[in-house]
Amino acid sequence: MKVKEIYDFLNELSPFDTQEKWDNSGLLVGNYEDEVKEVHISLDLDLDVLEKVSPNALIITHHPLIFSALKSVNYDSYSSKLLKILIKKDISLISMHTNFDKSHLNKYVAENILGLDIDETDGYITYASVNKDFVTFQKDVEKRLNLQYTKAVQCHDRVKKVALITGAGASMLSEVKADCFLTGDIKYHDAMEASLREISLIDIGHYESEHHFSPLMLGLCEKYLKINKLKAIITASKNPFKFQYQGETVE
Amino acid sequence: MKVKEIYDFLNELSPFDTQEKWDNSGLLVGNYEDEVKEVHISLDLDLDVLEKVSPNALIITHHPLIFSALKSVNYDSYSSKLLKILIKKDISLISMHTNFDKSHLNKYVAENILGLDIDETDGYITYASVNKDFVTFQKDVEKRLNLQYTKAVQCHDRVKKVALITGAGASMLSEVKADCFLTGDIKYHDAMEASLREISLIDIGHYESEHHFSPLMLGLCEKYLKINKLKAIITASKNPFKFQYQGETVE
Amino acid sequence: MKVKEIYDFLNELSPFDTQEKWDNSGLLVGNYEDEVKEVHISLDLDLDVLEKVSPNALIITHHPLIFSALKSVNYDSYSSKLLKILIKKDISLISMHTNFDKSHLNKYVAENILGLDIDETDGYITYASVNKDFVTFQKDVEKRLNLQYTKAVQCHDRVKKVALITGAGASMLSEVKADCFLTGDIKYHDAMEASLREISLIDIGHYESEHHFSPLMLGLCEKYLKINKLKAIITASKNPFKFQYQGETVE
Amino acid sequence: MKVKEIYDFLNELSPFDTQEKWDNSGLLVGNYEDEVKEVHISLDLDLDVLEKVSPNALIITHHPLIFSALKSVNYDSYSSKLLKILIKKDISLISMHTNFDKSHLNKYVAENILGLDIDETDGYITYASVNKDFVTFQKDVEKRLNLQYTKAVQCHDRVKKVALITGAGASMLSEVKADCFLTGDIKYHDAMEASLREISLIDIGHYESEHHFSPLMLGLCEKYLKINKLKAIITASKNPFKFQYQGETVE
Amino acid sequence: MKVKEIYDFLNELSPFDTQEKWDNSGLLVGNYEDEVKEVHISLDLDLDVLEKVSPNALIITHHPLIFSALKSVNYDSYSSKLLKILIKKDISLISMHTNFDKSHLNKYVAENILGLDIDETDGYITYASVNKDFVTFQKDVEKRLNLQYTKAVQCHDRVKKVALITGAGASMLSEVKADCFLTGDIKYHDAMEASLREISLIDIGHYESEHHFSPLMLGLCEKYLKINKLKAIITASKNPFKFQYQGETVE
Amino acid sequence: MKVKEIYDFLNELSPFDTQEKWDNSGLLVGNYEDEVKEVHISLDLDLDVLEKVSPNALIITHHPLIFSALKSVNYDSYSSKLLKILIKKDISLISMHTNFDKSHLNKYVAENILGLDIDETDGYITYASVNKDFVTFQKDVEKRLNLQYTKAVQCHDRVKKVALITGAGASMLSEVKADCFLTGDIKYHDAMEASLREISLIDIGHYESEHHFSPLMLGLCEKYLKINKLKAIITASKNPFKFQYQGETVE
Repeated sequence: MKVKEIYDFLNELSPFDTQEKWDNSGLLVGNYEDEVKEVHISLDLDLDVLEKVSPNALIITHHPLIFSALKSVNYDSYSSKLLKILIKKDISLISMHTNFDKSHLNKYVAENILGLDIDETDGYITYASVNKDFVTFQKDVEKRLNLQYTKAVQCHDRVKKVALITGAGASMLSEVKADCFLTGDIKYHDAMEASLREISLIDIGHYESEHHFSPLMLGLCEKYLKINKLKAIITASKNPFKFQYQGETVE
Repeated sequence: MKVKEIYDFLNELSPFDTQEKWDNSGLLVGNYEDEVKEVHISLDLDLDVLEKVSPNALIITHHPLIFSALKSVNYDSYSSKLLKILIKKDISLISMHTNFDKSHLNKYVAENILGLDIDETDGYITYASVNKDFVTFQKDVEKRLNLQYTKAVQCHDRVKKVALITGAGASMLSEVKADCFLTGDIKYHDAMEASLREISLIDIGHYESEHHFSPLMLGLCEKYLKINKLKAIITASKNPFKFQYQGETVE
Repeated sequence: MKVKEIYDFLNELSPFDTQEKWDNSGLLVGNYEDEVKEVHISLDLDLDVLEKVSPNALIITHHPLIFSALKSVNYDSYSSKLLKILIKKDISLISMHTNFDKSHLNKYVAENILGLDIDETDGYITYASVNKDFVTFQKDVEKRLNLQYTKAVQCHDRVKKVALITGAGASMLSEVKADCFLTGDIKYHDAMEASLREISLIDIGHYESEHHFSPLMLGLCEKYLKINKLKAIITASKNPFKFQYQGETVE
Repeated sequence: MKVKEIYDFLNELSPFDTQEKWDNSGLLVGNYEDEVKEVHISLDLDLDVLEKVSPNALIITHHPLIFSALKSVNYDSYSSKLLKILIKKDISLISMHTNFDKSHLNKYVAENILGLDIDETDGYITYASVNKDFVTFQKDVEKRLNLQYTKAVQCHDRVKKVALITGAGASMLSEVKADCFLTGDIKYHDAMEASLREISLIDIGHYESEHHFSPLMLGLCEKYLKINKLKAIITASKNPFKFQYQGETVE
Repeated sequence: MKVKEIYDFLNELSPFDTQEKWDNSGLLVGNYEDEVKEVHISLDLDLDVLEKVSPNALIITHHPLIFSALKSVNYDSYSSKLLKILIKKDISLISMHTNFDKSHLNKYVAENILGLDIDETDGYITYASVNKDFVTFQKDVEKRLNLQYTKAVQCHDRVKKVALITGAGASMLSEVKADCFLTGDIKYHDAMEASLREISLIDIGHYESEHHFSPLMLGLCEKYLKINKLKAIITASKNPFKFQYQGETVE
Repeated sequence: MKVKEIYDFLNELSPFDTQEKWDNSGLLVGNYEDEVKEVHISLDLDLDVLEKVSPNALIITHHPLIFSALKSVNYDSYSSKLLKILIKKDISLISMHTNFDKSHLNKYVAENILGLDIDETDGYITYASVNKDFVTFQKDVEKRLNLQYTKAVQCHDRVKKVALITGAGASMLSEVKADCFLTGDIKYHDAMEASLREISLIDIGHYESEHHFSPLMLGLCEKYLKINKLKAIITASKNPFKFQYQGETVE
């Protein structure tokens, strides 16, 4: 099966031209005419993933490997170090980022992982009605996402309406119309801003909220690939962070 | 004492024209000719701080209240909500941000809080030689900064050379020349980048690494203000984040 | 009555999204949820206007108070000095500038003040047929607008077709299709340009051609506000210029 | 004598590379190798000036004929209409604008026309101490500049320190350190801004404050040109504005 | 007949608003109201063309005389030297460049000069099916365009699908979907790029592929002008290049 | 020997920071810590060059492989197709482009290839006095550069002062102060411009004028590399153009 055929299937699933203009989703490494032997799915690339993947495979990731355009390839940076291995092993790479966030990922995490009933979606933002005590809701989120700890800004005793953006969505804060906002990678100034706007925040982790990309994507393309005699495999990248609590490492 | 006189004193301490060009340090609210009754010092402003501060005071903060220039004042956002109170109470505001990072704060936190021996400083980045087991060093950092938990990327067993930027410095990663980098607000993609560059990361918290601004600034201006019959008081803003570990709130 | 309700009424009258992209019409100070006690109308804000207006009022002006976005509030400049008073007195401010020029003001001044028969309008520009001797027409304009003196560039003996832009419209000169152009704040280079293009100019004053905003706006919103138990009052800003002719002050 | 030689003389008098970056001073029409038969001096070009000037002359003006770069030459606009005549008559044009403002013109008008004692100059701005009643000073300015009328913003009873920019300098208002600012082409919003900043304004006219360019320039180059057998002649452009006061034309 | 009438006729033939945004097609010199005595047609302007054209004529060229906007007119550069003559002789100039490439020129050269059967056109690019040996095809192109020599990059033995852009079209290489690309002014780096992309190139000359503009335009406007009593004449500019082969000049 | 050591040697020879700001000279592929087995020198890369070069070699080229930064690597374009081979064979690439033009190449070609006596150099441009009949000089240039044919614009009978830029330098035409300009890749509009400026042009070929890079560079680094036990080899890229004259291929 050719890269082009899989690209076209994915493009129908979640059109690449719906990506944000700062994004770089699409075929990032490899040629449309390359023959694909196997398909791997992962949130991201790391060294372990590339060790496991055989030559002539195609990897589908959520995050684009190349964000800032390359003027040189020095094998030092994240992009160029992994690019070298991809090229040496004739592996192709397609990334499905903001187009897939809008078409599938946010809704999937809201319903299937967090068990929320979606009210509406507005671009990136998924809204759901919740009527729970804040601490109870926070515990529930922590458990469902399997978070080691939770960092939160609490502005209200109860959570009524929740907004969700998987990954790092805090820059959208001023557009959120809810009393509680779930997203990952929340920074200190986001927390100060939310606190004054009286919108509670629960940090759901970037990796923790998005590694669900892999099973979701597998479910979406497994059947189509099988018909075309291709195996689709989840080969998941790891969370780069390790946590320590009161001097003890948390596994 | 006039705002102008204190501004000139602070400018001599840490010249405002050494700030980064995206920064907004300086006199943000109030007039050089205003008479100051009292001086308060805080990392940031929040509602509690402004409740405690009396009219006609001057507040010296680390972070500028206004970052994006205002085209309207709607009392909804962090900046405009607090701006309203400052104006109503005739409080003046001077922020000392990146100029002060370079002249004082990074070095102070490195030596006085983290107990490091500084090798050299390069703009924002402070370097120190450490020769410790990674986990031991991480525990030590956690304890000295009084962190509730620590998020880290470990690339090496031992920590040899450390780079430090207080606040949120991860965008400087590609310029760091050390095997371990301490900064706050580390995001997932920073961690992936560091992991491939084989630079360990320890997240020292934005608030936790910078609230030392207040005692440091107090020490630097207390005497001068006293001579001029002004009291300097630390009126500290709070960390907006609360933490929960395994379903239990961490105090 | 809430600011939001009046904003919505005004938006229906003259949609804010029809403003020019360099403009800053809209709610500039105050919160949509604020309760309004009284409505004042003025071309602009000045110290006298703000002295007369009671707390918790809403002022509707033609010119936006804030044009260049604010990075600090020093109480020195026009914007920040008046902003301070607005905030201290809990006064809200809505400005209706280029949207209102296009929807109402130019046509009103053309017909009701200058007594012209409008041929057509093209964005900002209102056209009318006049068939008068230039000097007679100039005297007529001077009288109807109550100008202390008139500055003009005369290119033709008779005025046939007139173009009108209230306020300062001379930058539109190259798009004017008429033999005589009426606008305010005409500068020397505009006059040189018009002279070579053989388009006569009559300077109708910025204040003098636009202070009609107040009675016009009053007429448009008085009834609606009255139904909602709110009084609408013209509290007019003053012309900042005084004139002296041959050494004598002109009143 | 060649254009190049006169250009070099003028460049020594007031270096062209000291012009502002938005300016277009220099040789605007003609070739350095052209032979010059006669030199004319004028604030600006107009049709009368070009009728009087003989072929193969060089004109030295204050204002550059071309400001916005030309993508077509349609003989409609001020620039292209006059450009046509210049080219047809083989006339060369050198403009000395902001370089000459800084080196000569502001100071000359301050001392020789307005009779002020200069305290200091700061770029464009010339400062002088005056200690007069505002109305008396305004009358004096009106008389010395031979103004038909004077438009002013009076903020103080007495004038102590005056700032002067000939031409149109109101955009420099926020940098002026004086209680009274003299410049031309003052617009309504400039007046509102000055009024709140408590800086009085007296509009000295753009043409009226700058047509002194011609005798000043004549004095500076007459001798040099005479030695080189060239006659220098003032061929002055006219003020495009005519004034009418209470229905009567003012001559 | 007025310039405006001919402009309108040409605009109907090939609308000026379909030109590329970097282009400068349209009326470049002269006024819409000018009376035209004669119409000349040429690929470009040069000194010989302007010597032959009588005063008050209109010239229609393919290439715009003015590309970079003029801030001064020094009679040194190509544009300003010819502009001087146009103005002195009251000649008007209309250029029909990228609008005409798309509407007429590419297709005309493909069919009428190169004898190709057009498959389709995509903006600038005209495609045709050819099934010939490369060298035979190259000789055919050389003969039909009357080229002194041909510079080519040969990637395949046979030419199957040809893409054509008259003038200098090599910057469109990455969008070409053909095995052989004909265009002029091919540079070394274009040749390297094409070589790796396996697209053959044949350099058809900029002048040699576009001087057909003149007879084509003549055919399109002759009848219309004749009805309006105007003569249309081809007054062709010359190819600026002369060729030398093995030390002998090629005529 | 490490890449870093050779980079440092080359940087001393011709500092990389003297390159033009649009250029991309430097280490483009490979890591400073890579061990180099062999050094190859070529004007450019092509498939034949990369076939001949062994793994772990370093290639020094004149032209940078990457000009436009890469957002994806599709193996279609010149850059990405060759990048793939470089990476697969662990070959490093250093390019020395505009820094080397200024420090060495232009002067070398002027003196050693064209046999000119250099008068002066001004950035890129090398000037020499020649006093020859144009056709004689053209023949001489053709012979010395071994050109198959020569394309020229002749404006004068004799060549007095020559300006030289190897490669493609025609965009510098307006800065050239000579009666004859030698450069490669001259386009039709350059020729028209030169013709009106009365500067003769002789097209010396991009490849033909710059492939001298290889022996020049070999001479400069051979000895240094030999001391460090490294062999330096010229592995020259080919001229992508083939020429046909009057239907016959020129070898």
